[in-house]
Amino acid sequence: MTAFVRNQWYVAAYAHEVGRELLGRTVLGEPILLYRAEDGRPVAMADRCVHRRFPLSEKPSRLDGDRVVCGYHGFTYGTDGVCVSVPGQQRIPRTARLATYPVLEQDSFVWVWIGDREPGDTLPPRAPWLDSPEYTVVCGMEPLEADYGLLVDNLLDLSHETYLHGGYIGTPEVAETPITTEVDDKTGVVYVSRHMADAACPPFYAESTGITGRITRWQDIEYHAPCLYLLHSRIAPVGTPDPSADGSDPDAFHVEVVYGITPSTEKTTYDFWAVARDFALEDQRVSDFLRENNHTVVMQDVVALNVLQKALDTEKAGYQELSINIDTGGLAARRILARLAAEGAERAEAAAR
Amino acid sequence: MTAFVRNQWYVAAYAHEVGRELLGRTVLGEPILLYRAEDGRPVAMADRCVHRRFPLSEKPSRLDGDRVVCGYHGFTYGTDGVCVSVPGQQRIPRTARLATYPVLEQDSFVWVWIGDREPGDTLPPRAPWLDSPEYTVVCGMEPLEADYGLLVDNLLDLSHETYLHGGYIGTPEVAETPITTEVDDKTGVVYVSRHMADAACPPFYAESTGITGRITRWQDIEYHAPCLYLLHSRIAPVGTPDPSADGSDPDAFHVEVVYGITPSTEKTTYDFWAVARDFALEDQRVSDFLRENNHTVVMQDVVALNVLQKALDTEKAGYQELSINIDTGGLAARRILARLAAEGAERAEAAAR
Amino acid sequence: MTAFVRNQWYVAAYAHEVGRELLGRTVLGEPILLYRAEDGRPVAMADRCVHRRFPLSEKPSRLDGDRVVCGYHGFTYGTDGVCVSVPGQQRIPRTARLATYPVLEQDSFVWVWIGDREPGDTLPPRAPWLDSPEYTVVCGMEPLEADYGLLVDNLLDLSHETYLHGGYIGTPEVAETPITTEVDDKTGVVYVSRHMADAACPPFYAESTGITGRITRWQDIEYHAPCLYLLHSRIAPVGTPDPSADGSDPDAFHVEVVYGITPSTEKTTYDFWAVARDFALEDQRVSDFLRENNHTVVMQDVVALNVLQKALDTEKAGYQELSINIDTGGLAARRILARLAAEGAERAEAAAR
Repeated sequence: MTAFVRNQWYVAAYAHEVGRELLGRTVLGEPILLYRAEDGRPVAMADRCVHRRFPLSEKPSRLDGDRVVCGYHGFTYGTDGVCVSVPGQQRIPRTARLATYPVLEQDSFVWVWIGDREPGDTLPPRAPWLDSPEYTVVCGMEPLEADYGLLVDNLLDLSHETYLHGGYIGTPEVAETPITTEVDDKTGVVYVSRHMADAACPPFYAESTGITGRITRWQDIEYHAPCLYLLHSRIAPVGTPDPSADGSDPDAFHVEVVYGITPSTEKTTYDFWAVARDFALEDQRVSDFLRENNHTVVMQDVVALNVLQKALDTEKAGYQELSINIDTGGLAARRILARLAAEGAERAEAAAR
Repeated sequence: MTAFVRNQWYVAAYAHEVGRELLGRTVLGEPILLYRAEDGRPVAMADRCVHRRFPLSEKPSRLDGDRVVCGYHGFTYGTDGVCVSVPGQQRIPRTARLATYPVLEQDSFVWVWIGDREPGDTLPPRAPWLDSPEYTVVCGMEPLEADYGLLVDNLLDLSHETYLHGGYIGTPEVAETPITTEVDDKTGVVYVSRHMADAACPPFYAESTGITGRITRWQDIEYHAPCLYLLHSRIAPVGTPDPSADGSDPDAFHVEVVYGITPSTEKTTYDFWAVARDFALEDQRVSDFLRENNHTVVMQDVVALNVLQKALDTEKAGYQELSINIDTGGLAARRILARLAAEGAERAEAAAR
Repeated sequence: MTAFVRNQWYVAAYAHEVGRELLGRTVLGEPILLYRAEDGRPVAMADRCVHRRFPLSEKPSRLDGDRVVCGYHGFTYGTDGVCVSVPGQQRIPRTARLATYPVLEQDSFVWVWIGDREPGDTLPPRAPWLDSPEYTVVCGMEPLEADYGLLVDNLLDLSHETYLHGGYIGTPEVAETPITTEVDDKTGVVYVSRHMADAACPPFYAESTGITGRITRWQDIEYHAPCLYLLHSRIAPVGTPDPSADGSDPDAFHVEVVYGITPSTEKTTYDFWAVARDFALEDQRVSDFLRENNHTVVMQDVVALNVLQKALDTEKAGYQELSINIDTGGLAARRILARLAAEGAERAEAAAR
């Protein structure tokens, strides 16, 4: 099992999922209640009533203005987690308060901070395309019955597109083309690039861009451990000029594929996925196609990773896996996660002293 | 997990459930076979054949007169648990006998004694309304996927009616009105009373009694640890005289709500529920309404307690719950259950010496 | 739980199940991939890719000629388990090879050898009727949610036919008639015989043979521990002469009932069953009847053994079962299995040194 990394921001939900209905999510094993106050601010607090632990996200718990009323005995909490009403008495115990979580909205996600200290100036990594007028976005979330490390492995090594996602986003060139990998240990970012100069155009891109011939296809991954994965995808007909020195690249199509990888329990993970494009911005047919096609791709991963988790669960002790060049990025990600987890654990111990 | 209390009577079934079909129930982790002999007596014995442990309550096991024939190899037992026939030989091993359980019928329930000694003169607590011509009864049983202690907590603190059962039996006054609690440590009975002088009449009572205005509503709980819970409910239009000194109370409506709380395994419980009324005795419409309405209420509890059990199962170590005045009865019940469990364990150890 | 016996042949599949589709079976806890090479030979190898452990029997893994292509990243293996292709590079790591299993086809089964040494000259026990022009066969396989030892117990003691399979293959005489048991410790074979001179004819045989009166019914069991069970069943109208000295027996009906008992995991078992007859060879109606009837009988066992396993799983420590004469064969089988398991474990230790 991949260790949890504490003292980090995690995607808890899409902004559009957090509203005036109570929403429960479990992040790094911590049950969290999410809702939006009347002034629009997202609120995150422990999803267990202080009294008898009833989950506040479960019906008939409900919102009363900005306050949460427990559906079991009516304990009522403000957005600061402080209990303001209990049944049958006026006096409210001093200790009747729920832990709250640092929470913020950024790039269409609601992020929560899971940690033993405050985030201070630390902000989540960015995915600005998800909330930009220059891009059109389709997105979703699939729960995974697997260790989040399996999803990190999966996304850091896209050679699997050729096999697991053939006929959707995979072509032979993806598996055949070598990668380059860079690791920034200081910021905890892993970069994996694969530039295909002359490749078949898979249906995902052919159908959405209208390209009929062969393409130049660039895959540039940035994995911001532990939670955010970005795939900068550049697609252009063979012969299209490279981007100019100022970064402009008017003749290519750009797709930003974003994953929020949020560990829920030791063997379950929230797989937030989004596809942002800088073309056909108003074309609903393209949006519908990309949503449907990417959902199918994500479900191919979900099915495969759930199978893999079951295989691991029944594996004999002492199994050795074998890694090759394509795993350079994934192995770097594991090292960073292990280091961050150890640092988080040290902080937790220090905080407990 | 709430410890099991041995050397006690438990409700294993309703009398009407025990007949000429074999019935299997697991009480305090012990698998028990129940049926009724031809002369009408209920019989209770271990639900595992001595030979290869096949459950005698499972088909194709069957009754042959008063004898039970195992559906696997035909080992046959009398009502005293003694094996009277085995396949392929005349000689029956001396040790071929099943443990039997003390069993009796009382107040519409079949009770079994789970213990390491005989019950002697000890009888189960009474719920005479369930078997009285002066009352009409509706009843049922719901299996709960939760520790029985969660059901005891639930029933000892009726403030939850306002929140979990609003629109059925709950009104604001239940949660608002303080309780009085008395504990008889000697007999192991907890009394919790809540007398509402002027309260809204919830649909459960409005529909069944025909009362249209506000009511005086008395809730008098008697919990006979570990197994029997009685709620004496008195409903009358505001202004109705109190009961007279001789106990007569002709102008009020009386409902006796009875629960048999039977631990099955560590995290499953039989929730026997019955509603006895002293009005509209022959009115089938009222019976149908109360059965349906109370079943809905019981299922609201079942769903909530199952959710709660799951929350507890994944809870981090060291969680502290917070109790207030309304929990006085529940906390007393826990203390009594802990004491009785310890006494039962001591007896078991003494018996083993 | 019954210990696994290593260094033995096991039925992994019927020959007709192993073809040009990838088939996954778990034998003694080992995940095995089965398929048939283009020249018809069955192939068996570890069902986990060396790279990231993806099960090669799971889609979209596929065959490419005689090679298996992993559906996750395209690692490709020959029939000898050696990896011949990996994505993104020409060099194939020397250790990229899967364990293969000795495999052979015999008597309509595909057998695999599970062990720490090679089988050498050891061959699986025989069931020639399953692949003989003189017999017509119906067969199937049912997965069992139970320890394989429970199936061995079940099949070694046919007195249960009277109770569990009454109306199908059981009549009172089966349970009433004593057995004779012989054990060949050297070869690990248990023989149990029950010869009924004058018995009712159960529907299984009445319907298939056309006999309308009482029968002589011989049940001669040969259990070749751990995996193969044979029941030689001889049915003839009362008064039919016994088989002659040269073995010919033209006036009787013969049914060979064969079970492959293959432990999958500690609590799951493959129950391969086949019924071969030497009469009505071309009669499709008889084949359909026997297939349907025996499937029903097998499912009666499956349901009962699954129930039994659940009963054992929740049993208190210290339970003592009681055995009688009919269990002589089953107890002998357990002794042999325990001895073989211990020998297999010793060999495994020796191999590890």
